[in-house]
Amino acid sequence: MSEAPFARVALIGIGLIGSSLAHNIRAHRLADHIAITTRRAETLARAAELGLGDSYHLDAAEAVRGADLVILCVPVGSCGAVSKEIAAALEPGAIVSDVGSVKGSVIQQMQPNLPAHIHFVPAHPIAGTEQSGPDAGFRELFENRWCILTPVEGTDPQAVERLKRFWEGCGSNVEVMTAEHHDLVLAIVSHVPHLIAYNIVGTAADLETVTQSEVVKFSASGFRDFTRIAASDPTMWRDVFLHNREAVLEMLARFSEDLATLQRAIRWGDGDTLFELFTRTRAIRRGIVEAGQDTAQPDFGREHGRGPKDET
Amino acid sequence: MSEAPFARVALIGIGLIGSSLAHNIRAHRLADHIAITTRRAETLARAAELGLGDSYHLDAAEAVRGADLVILCVPVGSCGAVSKEIAAALEPGAIVSDVGSVKGSVIQQMQPNLPAHIHFVPAHPIAGTEQSGPDAGFRELFENRWCILTPVEGTDPQAVERLKRFWEGCGSNVEVMTAEHHDLVLAIVSHVPHLIAYNIVGTAADLETVTQSEVVKFSASGFRDFTRIAASDPTMWRDVFLHNREAVLEMLARFSEDLATLQRAIRWGDGDTLFELFTRTRAIRRGIVEAGQDTAQPDFGREHGRGPKDET
Repeated sequence: MSEAPFARVALIGIGLIGSSLAHNIRAHRLADHIAITTRRAETLARAAELGLGDSYHLDAAEAVRGADLVILCVPVGSCGAVSKEIAAALEPGAIVSDVGSVKGSVIQQMQPNLPAHIHFVPAHPIAGTEQSGPDAGFRELFENRWCILTPVEGTDPQAVERLKRFWEGCGSNVEVMTAEHHDLVLAIVSHVPHLIAYNIVGTAADLETVTQSEVVKFSASGFRDFTRIAASDPTMWRDVFLHNREAVLEMLARFSEDLATLQRAIRWGDGDTLFELFTRTRAIRRGIVEAGQDTAQPDFGREHGRGPKDET
Repeated sequence: MSEAPFARVALIGIGLIGSSLAHNIRAHRLADHIAITTRRAETLARAAELGLGDSYHLDAAEAVRGADLVILCVPVGSCGAVSKEIAAALEPGAIVSDVGSVKGSVIQQMQPNLPAHIHFVPAHPIAGTEQSGPDAGFRELFENRWCILTPVEGTDPQAVERLKRFWEGCGSNVEVMTAEHHDLVLAIVSHVPHLIAYNIVGTAADLETVTQSEVVKFSASGFRDFTRIAASDPTMWRDVFLHNREAVLEMLARFSEDLATLQRAIRWGDGDTLFELFTRTRAIRRGIVEAGQDTAQPDFGREHGRGPKDET
């Protein structure tokens, strides 16, 4: 007799998010059985070594057979292909979800392939680190973070509620919104920040007047903060930009307009414009710390005064 | 009988850097006497409460009298005025230095006011947090960080060597370069990163389609990293941009060119260009971690799974 909310969860893809989910499902007993599937045999073997699941499958269709919850944890560009692979094997009544950072495109890609007898509830946990792969996951990743659900019109409210409880079981707060709004919000809080981080690191690497070794040595003056997110998974992020094109271009245009204004202020020595902005932005940091979305400790609580040899 | 390398150090300005220096001078016994001066009586009283110095002065000239090392720890825009105030009171043979993030302008502002009988050795410790004021300082701030000295032509090498040893005494590694090169390096590793962080936070605050509360809630997806440096001291940073105009505008132009290339790649669905950059930038992160300039821990070693109430 089982009391777990799901009998069998199939995790398709076992990178940072997939493996963090596996840790949560196990720790909080959110399902009786964890079926793991991923394309590369090497990654699957590593997941097995880590004991992340109960069964391991190279064939995604085999993994989802008998599953009442299926979660795609793959780059958003792969969602369409995966949904085709698994469609015929999905159990009637199963909840099919994902963790992609773009929701409109995921729905467009998956919905035409999915049978009418399942519940499709797209999701996006707002959590991550710059690391990837099955070794990167950990149980606390989703705690006190938000997970956004973007159900399509006509979705059974009970299926949405079950998935909501699942994510709450992982420690998340859950919010429901439209896919369109999600993609706009994420463009400004995530996609454009990643793009400009990648970009400044690229600009610095290409200079002929400043050496790469100088960039590395003196990075503690601000630059190194950007290199963390510019170390994120390249495939995942390429897909994000290709699949949230409209919203990213819109937010990028605003960013560039605003930057041109600052550029002009610098050129013409307009200190007031700079000071006014720099004062305003402090309040937002304060809001984030108060909302528990970042640490109040200076410098992210980084250890100071420790060399590379001291780190363990 | 004293063995401290300096008899009396005068710290002009007692914010994050000044107070961190005070902690270091005391802990490592780099001087027999620490004289502290700052413009605002309230800040001076707080420095005294914290026991940061041995004497406290509202009059900067009084503080530097008898000092064999004088360090200006004020926003770069104030260096000219401060050098005028103290010039007549400086002891022959004293080393006069600063900690400003721009060196060319500081030299231009200070050199004409300083008497010939002192040694002027501009300096810049590459270290900081987003916090400011006399309470923000701590002893470990400079450990394993770089400090750049930019002596002008004709400076007594012995004075440079003495200041080098002082910074090494604070735990820093020391590098010597020209002011011009320093300003170029810092424009790319520090000034432009700060500008774009301030800018993206401003862009996000001004949106009419995404609320400020959404920006705060979902900030863990990347945005919050930028808010930390966008919470840095507004006066200090206004001055940096006004005083390193040429180099900042040059680096900003390169950043914008590169960003336009990425924008075009997104518009035309050119995934290869994105993927190539995103792969290249990972290597730079690795270099920074290997050089001991950032932690190897994921997410800067931020605590996960802790709410605001858990933080102490």
